[in-house]
Amino acid sequence: MESGCDRGCTPRQRRSRRPAAETRREILSAADTLFRERGYQQVAMADVAAALGMSPANVFKHFHAKTALVDAIACTHVQEMMEQLKGLEMPREPQAKLLRVAEALLTSLLADVRDNRHLFEMIVLTADLELRAGDMYRATISAIFEMIILEGVEAGEFFVRDPRHTASVVTTALAGVINPLSVSSEKPETLYTRCRDVIELVNTALQNPLAK
Amino acid sequence: MESGCDRGCTPRQRRSRRPAAETRREILSAADTLFRERGYQQVAMADVAAALGMSPANVFKHFHAKTALVDAIACTHVQEMMEQLKGLEMPREPQAKLLRVAEALLTSLLADVRDNRHLFEMIVLTADLELRAGDMYRATISAIFEMIILEGVEAGEFFVRDPRHTASVVTTALAGVINPLSVSSEKPETLYTRCRDVIELVNTALQNPLAK
Repeated sequence: MESGCDRGCTPRQRRSRRPAAETRREILSAADTLFRERGYQQVAMADVAAALGMSPANVFKHFHAKTALVDAIACTHVQEMMEQLKGLEMPREPQAKLLRVAEALLTSLLADVRDNRHLFEMIVLTADLELRAGDMYRATISAIFEMIILEGVEAGEFFVRDPRHTASVVTTALAGVINPLSVSSEKPETLYTRCRDVIELVNTALQNPLAK
Repeated sequence: MESGCDRGCTPRQRRSRRPAAETRREILSAADTLFRERGYQQVAMADVAAALGMSPANVFKHFHAKTALVDAIACTHVQEMMEQLKGLEMPREPQAKLLRVAEALLTSLLADVRDNRHLFEMIVLTADLELRAGDMYRATISAIFEMIILEGVEAGEFFVRDPRHTASVVTTALAGVINPLSVSSEKPETLYTRCRDVIELVNTALQNPLAK
């Protein structure tokens, strides 16, 4: 049982039956189910409230808009993706590690295209908004690449002056393969080929001791 | 005046008042105007027909679905973008040429984000379909990069075994910058920085004589 509230809520809220974090989780779970079943566009905040027997005002207290629901659902999903990555068996060479991580991300996205189609509908329909989930996805991937690049530099395999910056560039260069917006209309074999090709280009660049 | 019909239409169609190509152009122009004014989702094929005083069946004869209209409008737009590129003043060095082309494409897309917002709405809403316009955009850009890479190889600047393949990989690596789906939610300065960074990575790879 949670004993308190760490979200800075007021004394009145603190007296309510459930902690705010639990209510948030319930709202997100109900919204995710409804988006999956009916499609993102067909679901209103009032539907989410009704599914939980809550007032719409209560839902709006926790999420100011439907896009905030999308952002929170996508953030949770990104965290789950990254948890899975931790269990990945890794090859020894840094070059092979870059490929392994990129392919694992692509595989994870393709599984979502198949099993969690509603996530892509949501991402596409909010594509012109700056959501936290997008920044978090990019930053987490970039941090993983940075670790691998650092290893490669220490092993004398990579010639890179600023591993953090290079990791960010590598993440950009892979956008055509690991950006959710890019994967839904392409054939998996095309994407895996492009993934290997871009990683080969990246490895060629990172191994260039003549780089300016 | 066009004297015949090169679209394999039937004798009955050939007797109609206007050549099919002209009717197609009129439909596309009317659809583009309506999509721009009312939004893609709010316009039905019947609205396009009504705006032209045509029967919906006649519109469907030329475009089997609203997505076919989107594809044709996007194809025309890609052709116009590429026409503009032809007038681009080019630096001498192949490395600088790659950057110039990539930046020009980004500038063109950012102008569209500002002036032709409806195009992005259409592209986003058809993101899970395989449209001809997407392949055409990719193939045209790749062909331009191929020419520049060939020049670089001939000048002894680039070490590339298969310029066509490498050009296609470079196009993939730039997707995060020159893919319409990627640009609408990012700040222009972020995109220009990413564009320079990816081209620098590409140039470092292409200049690596040690590449496997």
